[in-house]
Amino acid sequence: MKIAFIGLGNMGAPMALNLLKAGHALNVFDLNAQAVQSLVAAGASAATSPKAASTDAELVITMLPAAAHVKAVLTGEEGILAGIAKNVTIVDSSTIDPASVKAFAELANQNGNTFVDAPVSGGTGGAAAGTLTFMVGGSAQVYEQVKPVLTSMGKNIVHCGDTSTGQVAKICNNLVLGITMAGVSEAMALGVALGIDPKVLGGIINTSTGRCWSSDTYNPFPGVIETAPSTRGYTGGFGTDLMLKDLGLATDAAKLARQPVYLGALAQQLYQTMSTKGAGKLDFSAVIKLYRNDGDA
Amino acid sequence: MKIAFIGLGNMGAPMALNLLKAGHALNVFDLNAQAVQSLVAAGASAATSPKAASTDAELVITMLPAAAHVKAVLTGEEGILAGIAKNVTIVDSSTIDPASVKAFAELANQNGNTFVDAPVSGGTGGAAAGTLTFMVGGSAQVYEQVKPVLTSMGKNIVHCGDTSTGQVAKICNNLVLGITMAGVSEAMALGVALGIDPKVLGGIINTSTGRCWSSDTYNPFPGVIETAPSTRGYTGGFGTDLMLKDLGLATDAAKLARQPVYLGALAQQLYQTMSTKGAGKLDFSAVIKLYRNDGDA
Amino acid sequence: MKIAFIGLGNMGAPMALNLLKAGHALNVFDLNAQAVQSLVAAGASAATSPKAASTDAELVITMLPAAAHVKAVLTGEEGILAGIAKNVTIVDSSTIDPASVKAFAELANQNGNTFVDAPVSGGTGGAAAGTLTFMVGGSAQVYEQVKPVLTSMGKNIVHCGDTSTGQVAKICNNLVLGITMAGVSEAMALGVALGIDPKVLGGIINTSTGRCWSSDTYNPFPGVIETAPSTRGYTGGFGTDLMLKDLGLATDAAKLARQPVYLGALAQQLYQTMSTKGAGKLDFSAVIKLYRNDGDA
Amino acid sequence: MKIAFIGLGNMGAPMALNLLKAGHALNVFDLNAQAVQSLVAAGASAATSPKAASTDAELVITMLPAAAHVKAVLTGEEGILAGIAKNVTIVDSSTIDPASVKAFAELANQNGNTFVDAPVSGGTGGAAAGTLTFMVGGSAQVYEQVKPVLTSMGKNIVHCGDTSTGQVAKICNNLVLGITMAGVSEAMALGVALGIDPKVLGGIINTSTGRCWSSDTYNPFPGVIETAPSTRGYTGGFGTDLMLKDLGLATDAAKLARQPVYLGALAQQLYQTMSTKGAGKLDFSAVIKLYRNDGDA
Repeated sequence: MKIAFIGLGNMGAPMALNLLKAGHALNVFDLNAQAVQSLVAAGASAATSPKAASTDAELVITMLPAAAHVKAVLTGEEGILAGIAKNVTIVDSSTIDPASVKAFAELANQNGNTFVDAPVSGGTGGAAAGTLTFMVGGSAQVYEQVKPVLTSMGKNIVHCGDTSTGQVAKICNNLVLGITMAGVSEAMALGVALGIDPKVLGGIINTSTGRCWSSDTYNPFPGVIETAPSTRGYTGGFGTDLMLKDLGLATDAAKLARQPVYLGALAQQLYQTMSTKGAGKLDFSAVIKLYRNDGDA
Repeated sequence: MKIAFIGLGNMGAPMALNLLKAGHALNVFDLNAQAVQSLVAAGASAATSPKAASTDAELVITMLPAAAHVKAVLTGEEGILAGIAKNVTIVDSSTIDPASVKAFAELANQNGNTFVDAPVSGGTGGAAAGTLTFMVGGSAQVYEQVKPVLTSMGKNIVHCGDTSTGQVAKICNNLVLGITMAGVSEAMALGVALGIDPKVLGGIINTSTGRCWSSDTYNPFPGVIETAPSTRGYTGGFGTDLMLKDLGLATDAAKLARQPVYLGALAQQLYQTMSTKGAGKLDFSAVIKLYRNDGDA
Repeated sequence: MKIAFIGLGNMGAPMALNLLKAGHALNVFDLNAQAVQSLVAAGASAATSPKAASTDAELVITMLPAAAHVKAVLTGEEGILAGIAKNVTIVDSSTIDPASVKAFAELANQNGNTFVDAPVSGGTGGAAAGTLTFMVGGSAQVYEQVKPVLTSMGKNIVHCGDTSTGQVAKICNNLVLGITMAGVSEAMALGVALGIDPKVLGGIINTSTGRCWSSDTYNPFPGVIETAPSTRGYTGGFGTDLMLKDLGLATDAAKLARQPVYLGALAQQLYQTMSTKGAGKLDFSAVIKLYRNDGDA
Repeated sequence: MKIAFIGLGNMGAPMALNLLKAGHALNVFDLNAQAVQSLVAAGASAATSPKAASTDAELVITMLPAAAHVKAVLTGEEGILAGIAKNVTIVDSSTIDPASVKAFAELANQNGNTFVDAPVSGGTGGAAAGTLTFMVGGSAQVYEQVKPVLTSMGKNIVHCGDTSTGQVAKICNNLVLGITMAGVSEAMALGVALGIDPKVLGGIINTSTGRCWSSDTYNPFPGVIETAPSTRGYTGGFGTDLMLKDLGLATDAAKLARQPVYLGALAQQLYQTMSTKGAGKLDFSAVIKLYRNDGDA
């Protein structure tokens, strides 16, 4: 299949590589020449603009940092909509707000194209291994159409409903994640301050009603889970500033939907404090530092 | 074994029955004559006071609503310490604050006795079925001593560490639980307001990083989990006022330990609002009503 | 002076009337023909577009609901920048986010014009009476230039600093206001629940360190302040949805500035809950209903 | 008048001195011998116990750190109730929870005495100058009876209502204070981050609807108010740990009264974080440090 791939960052580059490995022909674009060069070395063609990349494409995939980038790449003079053929589908795997997805889908529709939101979870590790989860928003028909291609990059391709529900799913999951991580942090910090061993407390929570991914897989207290970022100084993993971005998307979407998000808005302030104090690059589980008097954050 | 059992409420009565079934001789006390009568009908002896119940006992077990009751039953003129023989152990399965446990253990110690905290999880269903989890705070030696008896009432008997760490474990687990339930509530309410199907959203969270007991076993959105209280009008289950009690113990313990508990304190206000508005008897997952404009709470 | 006035809503219309009274020549525009007609009846000329209104103007004033409207009125094909003469100043009295102000000022500057933010406080009452406070962001020179005109509409014309600081001042003041009103609400509700007379409690707070406008002028407990909206069923005053808009501007600005706003974000959820439950049109002091079991909200 | 005065700490000692100056005969007690010595040097008699101090007294005044101390001093074997004559009134100026006041009043009543709560505001400065505010809970009759004596120590003697309403008034005022200070902190930090001058912002808030004591008298941003602790490194003033104590009393009282206190509970966590990080002795306005990246707290 001839695929245009726009956006070759930490996530996009390994995703594009997996498409090449699966035998697809790729026409790639990125502002970073070095990123383009790596993909060309692996067999892709370099395009001079999103428009040029899209001209012959049978499918267009975008993977960009924020809605403003998607808008520019889509609607600019040298953008996708200026080059793409009628009836070709655009799959956007960026994590952006649902309202923007609806606006972009409308623009694509007016151009004779379908815009599908398909944000991912699984991080750079999942992108490299081809084990991402894709949360797809669009009709059942277009879901069936894009699923085989997405399967080259991920192992779970979930149909979430109509346009923008892929973003809704991702945002709501990460809202829960941001809250549970801060919640587990305060419970672990409290328990240890009250004299219980952190591994014992983790073990009890993990087999009881407090059980959650933030405790049993990614526990923020150092040493409780050997493979968690907390055990290696909060390096690697999912950065505080990325969690902050996703909680920002959640609270913005809540504002538009006129829904209260008490704990989400509060958790956002906790991660914001970490970022303000200079810890934005640490794994988001470092939020436990706010609860402990261990000399930093 | 001759056991004194004080406190035959919704939890204590079925626990005592399981001890009888296991062949223990029970001397029971409760202010509620009818509760005592039921146990006597099942083979227990009725005592006229905690003191009388404890006089011949080889083990004393208490299961009471709050620390004030434990204090009265323990230290009153007709209390346990006035009757119990030296070296007999007292197991308190009430859920109370760790500071009170330490005070009671000190009093017991001065009397020549050991006081073990062993709060439970599993609810009235687990109490009836004998499948409770006991979180035991005390020395390794006393844990080994009481474990065989507790096994007649529960299936997981966990040693949490020294005196009071059983309560610490329970309080910290329920702190996480109270937070995750409110967090899942706001994410489910937000997602549905943004147009995603609640079962689809629940399914994604349950296989992703937002995964938690409050979502995959007890999801607050009606219809997502067939067996959850939300699907039967928030009846049965774990009442809002009970969650409020446990979050109160957590925030009180945090105050004494000088630990911040941002999300726990906020979750407490949400459950308090439910209770203030008259919904204290509903299952605690009814907190989702605060987020939805469905005509009540 | 020949002034173009764009936006004749609840605030804009009385402001424009005061300019007419002061002897200025007004060229007005609004999408609402009836609003235009009222101003024409008072002596203004009707323009067919913002561009037409601005063509001969010596000063342009805009008073619009949100940044999107300001953008459209400024940059549209029939917008202000398409008609305005070089060196003419644009005063925007809308309440919008500081980042948009900076963007609009840049666009105006490229067009040879100065864009001044001058949001107001004082409500529709102050607009009618000509007693508004204007918070002006711009150079000292442009502040001196626009001050005489603004004096026809307000009694305090405050220079806040460079471009956008007028909005910053307004947003930060209303952030404090939204917090203090909710704070006074919970203290009044708590005090009354604990048995103190609301007037006595209000009196003590108003002469002590809790003293604030939300207590001494606008107390949310009915009957404490005779002239407050709380004493007339929370009608009139400053609507919950307007407070919600301003807290949204504050938390959005905080997100961009990477600043935590713990209490502001929480207060936003409280007003959001009021709005979600159908009370968005009530005065914002009705937030006290969340704290009381009086049968509504 | 013969007065027993129990508790000669930072507040009690200057209050007792003012009673001596007013011509009363004082019989004082404190565990700290040096504090007693200072009062004796000023003309007081030293008693060997609260009981001894109270035996001949026509009025008993207590000024102690917490409810536990009041209980001990009142009900101990060598306590006030063991020595006091029938019909003599006890005035407690400690800041404690309303529920304890009611319990103490009941005990006093059984002993033939009246217990009046009369907590103060005004700090050590007001205690020395005799300008304290007394918030008095008790009958109108007993208020009239104690007012002349309290006037020797304070300038505002406010009758708040029945027993315990003095504490309710103080707690509710300080609840508002703790919230407004944190709210002003986040607004000032946000405004400055957005580019406005702190003095300009303070000036606008102080003449607008955000006006409050925490901004116009005690602004937490250094340099805005010359006489505020913020301008002298957050020294002097009202310590963070004292604010934490009062917010703890407020949230505890709210728990008993089954009232939500969203902002109060959150503000408590902010001051707790300050204390946990080692800043408990700084003035409570130092909470602004949580919002700024200035290298500490």
